[in-house]
Amino acid sequence: MIAAAAALAAKHRATLDQAIAAARGRGHFSAYPEAPSGKIYGETAKAEAEAAFNALLNHPFAAGAPQIGAERSPWGSALGVTYPALDVPALIARAEAAARGWAGASPEDRAGVCLEILHRLNRDSFLMAQAVMHTTGQGWAMAFQAGGPHAQDRGLEAVAYAMEELGRIPPAVRWTKQAGKEQLVLDKLFRAVPRGIGVVIGCATFPTWNGYPGIFANLVTGNVVIVKPHPAAILPLALTVRTARAVLAEAGFAEDVIQLAPDTPDAPIAAQLAAHEAVGIVDFTGGPAFGRWLREQVGGRKALHTEEAGINPVVLHSTDDFAGLCRNLAFSLSLYSGQMCTAPQNLFVPQDGIATDEGHKGFDEIGRALAAAVDALLKDPGRAAGVLGTVQSPATLDRIAEARKLGQVVRDSGSVDMPGFPEARSATPLLVAVDAGAREAWGEERFGPIAFLIRCADADAALDHAAHSARTRGAITALVHSTDEAFLARAEAAFARAGVALSENLTGGVFVNQSAAFSDYHVSGANPAGTSCLTDAAFVANRFHIAMARRPAAA
Amino acid sequence: MIAAAAALAAKHRATLDQAIAAARGRGHFSAYPEAPSGKIYGETAKAEAEAAFNALLNHPFAAGAPQIGAERSPWGSALGVTYPALDVPALIARAEAAARGWAGASPEDRAGVCLEILHRLNRDSFLMAQAVMHTTGQGWAMAFQAGGPHAQDRGLEAVAYAMEELGRIPPAVRWTKQAGKEQLVLDKLFRAVPRGIGVVIGCATFPTWNGYPGIFANLVTGNVVIVKPHPAAILPLALTVRTARAVLAEAGFAEDVIQLAPDTPDAPIAAQLAAHEAVGIVDFTGGPAFGRWLREQVGGRKALHTEEAGINPVVLHSTDDFAGLCRNLAFSLSLYSGQMCTAPQNLFVPQDGIATDEGHKGFDEIGRALAAAVDALLKDPGRAAGVLGTVQSPATLDRIAEARKLGQVVRDSGSVDMPGFPEARSATPLLVAVDAGAREAWGEERFGPIAFLIRCADADAALDHAAHSARTRGAITALVHSTDEAFLARAEAAFARAGVALSENLTGGVFVNQSAAFSDYHVSGANPAGTSCLTDAAFVANRFHIAMARRPAAA
Repeated sequence: MIAAAAALAAKHRATLDQAIAAARGRGHFSAYPEAPSGKIYGETAKAEAEAAFNALLNHPFAAGAPQIGAERSPWGSALGVTYPALDVPALIARAEAAARGWAGASPEDRAGVCLEILHRLNRDSFLMAQAVMHTTGQGWAMAFQAGGPHAQDRGLEAVAYAMEELGRIPPAVRWTKQAGKEQLVLDKLFRAVPRGIGVVIGCATFPTWNGYPGIFANLVTGNVVIVKPHPAAILPLALTVRTARAVLAEAGFAEDVIQLAPDTPDAPIAAQLAAHEAVGIVDFTGGPAFGRWLREQVGGRKALHTEEAGINPVVLHSTDDFAGLCRNLAFSLSLYSGQMCTAPQNLFVPQDGIATDEGHKGFDEIGRALAAAVDALLKDPGRAAGVLGTVQSPATLDRIAEARKLGQVVRDSGSVDMPGFPEARSATPLLVAVDAGAREAWGEERFGPIAFLIRCADADAALDHAAHSARTRGAITALVHSTDEAFLARAEAAFARAGVALSENLTGGVFVNQSAAFSDYHVSGANPAGTSCLTDAAFVANRFHIAMARRPAAA
Repeated sequence: MIAAAAALAAKHRATLDQAIAAARGRGHFSAYPEAPSGKIYGETAKAEAEAAFNALLNHPFAAGAPQIGAERSPWGSALGVTYPALDVPALIARAEAAARGWAGASPEDRAGVCLEILHRLNRDSFLMAQAVMHTTGQGWAMAFQAGGPHAQDRGLEAVAYAMEELGRIPPAVRWTKQAGKEQLVLDKLFRAVPRGIGVVIGCATFPTWNGYPGIFANLVTGNVVIVKPHPAAILPLALTVRTARAVLAEAGFAEDVIQLAPDTPDAPIAAQLAAHEAVGIVDFTGGPAFGRWLREQVGGRKALHTEEAGINPVVLHSTDDFAGLCRNLAFSLSLYSGQMCTAPQNLFVPQDGIATDEGHKGFDEIGRALAAAVDALLKDPGRAAGVLGTVQSPATLDRIAEARKLGQVVRDSGSVDMPGFPEARSATPLLVAVDAGAREAWGEERFGPIAFLIRCADADAALDHAAHSARTRGAITALVHSTDEAFLARAEAAFARAGVALSENLTGGVFVNQSAAFSDYHVSGANPAGTSCLTDAAFVANRFHIAMARRPAAA
């Protein structure tokens, strides 16, 4: 069946309206169920997805030459999947050939296509879970949720923001002005024009969650997209692009509206793509070295949205639930082995300790309690495997070894047995105590399960260190624990200025690592952790311009 | 009387609401009357303004040392006004000291202050007209309108866009999510946080019209502002800043929320200001050389909005009002001696001429008719002085001399007697015929009363040249004349893609040079003429970020 774009727009209209309302209201909303339940996704969905995933292994993903790809699951073996690779001129030429038809479609039709893509991606979330798990190394449950429904919600959110912006532009207006005795009457036409080819450069840890905002913001604003995945996590974006191309073709558009552009570490193409004169928009998630290159080389001429390194702080002042604090923080340090861009690294603690509901707790006591909470969380191997997942890159293990030497080891990192995955690359959180003066230790991002317990003069000094580091070195999240409203107010002011999303007194089932679609603003653009928020008007508004044609009205 | 910010917000609420509605609807709207009428502004306003202007001459504008300033009226004599100059560290220190109080005010209060500033600037439009006339060289009527009410409308428009964006962010929300059996409830606070110090770098031709969008967009989003005027046009922005500081002080804010930062051609400070780490936003109107420096040096790290050179095309295909076409175009070429960023430079004409209501007109005939229309427009010296104004910079006269050599002179530029201003620097439009292949002649901006009549193979080739030049070299406006709807549709598509505001078949009292506040989008950001539209959401949305604090709701 050929599904026309207009039919897709009608089919998904209610979802889009809900999403726009949710983004305005910023309460809880999700269009795509996060529970990996057979009742929702079909009782056979999981088994079928595993079979489908296994069928993908050790084969070319699609025809074409040359074939490249050397993904290895952090849980064990090589995937053996290869992908056809095009060079940059060929990618650009195909993108340009596809551009006109897509730009000419109405925003409503493009939104309909986007929502159908998201709908099918949602249907296939179990397959995506396998692909995300075996490229990023996430535990299965996280791979399902963050790689599937949560990423889809982020994509929908970008569609909602863009439609909100596009919806402000009246298609036509009659302009009438009395100028002395003469009445001037013009008919004006307005329309949003895409900025050009969008390049989305993916990361190895959250390829879909971090990639979908840029992909869908580009698509709905009429831009064609070239998706350049990280060489270690191609498959999740290859599946995404395959689904998108199928929907585009069914709706009567060129498949090349979106293209996959895999590359290898030996012959990277991201810089060449980003710098190409036909490219108008670059979305990048990755390290600050390439981020800086992008900011300097393309930032002044193109729309550039980056998410780079964050060094996320925790400030302890006081608590009325010390056990909850430790449990909650242990989970945040352990989840996906500290490889979330929102995971805490630096725990700023007064040297004289803090007041708690269990009485005064000294600095060393806090360290021991946190270590014990991590141990308790990871005691059961099955649970540990689910929470920790695996370590995406071997370089992270080297960083752990180096970090051990930087201070007093309060809790050492070790490997854990992952049931069913004897070759899994694992590492539990390392907790190292240092003095606040040891900025060479804690003042840079040490990506992975590495955290510092930082001895500060007092709680105000802890807050100052944390906020200053966030402002100058970058951070995405911060967590503060205090029973004192005045201290919380100071923290709110300091972290607002630093451009960090602040969580306070988390002791239960919400974690500082989590950023909820439609409600939380992810990244601020106000510190070195990234140039842009992924979830505000500025993220979409510069992906198009408004064209005008005006003429005297017919008499 | 100390007017509290809240009272100002209430006083101007209706104006703001009207402005927001107008920016949405994009019909005609103006809050500030463009007619320089005694009935509106007071019968003595003009005489009082002239006296006030004369009292400013040959005096320091304000106390302080060192005093700098060497403005010369293009209409004749030196102004003799000097201004206290601060160095960059002092400007930044004062801006930072003023920042906290301004950032802490509500958007509504800041908007109230902005609208009071605009209200007082409007009241003083006759004085502004004198200041603009005798720095930019504009004719008096244009100096009044473009320097006064039209600039004020642009400022109000920026306030409206910013309030629209700021108004989307709910100050607080309760977020409730059912997670299995557990109900997660968070209270979240959101607020817009200014990006940092804004630097607005002014131009010599439209210091207020081009400066107000950035100034007011910054102020209302909570950023403090340093206004760096062009050394040749300090006075209009000095008056603006003085008015703004008075309102700020009365409303209880630090005067240094806005500062004037004059400099000299020998010791320019714009680069040092723009690059300072405390500066987060740069607005620039001026030439592409410094524009490129800004794009490369600060564009990737800061919010940068530039308006640079535009080479605006006209395409002639056919017309049913040849006389009107010539009259209208003659006015557009003559108005302010071609020194508007929206003035046409390149007239692309089929070598075999065009069909008109007066029969077929050949290429040479069109040139003669245009020349005659310019002559007729400028025959009366008083009218000529009003339309042409004067030439702001002596360098423009050199450019005219050089342009004469580039082809066949169809109409030569000459000086005109400006009644009452014997030393005025004047130049009428130069019209030079060249072949389309002579891109070295017409392919760059030749700022001033210089236009090329470009001989093209046919109308489609004319359109192709015009659109390609706009895309690759930059343009802000385009004008096309055609009686063929299919040709107009092709022109609309081509100039939409090129990011140019298109006018069609203008033969009456609307001119391609004019950009109406609240309706026309000025600059697209989609070609080299500038990085940003001055009048859309993207212009305001990256001047602030959204800060969040969330905590578990009290049980």
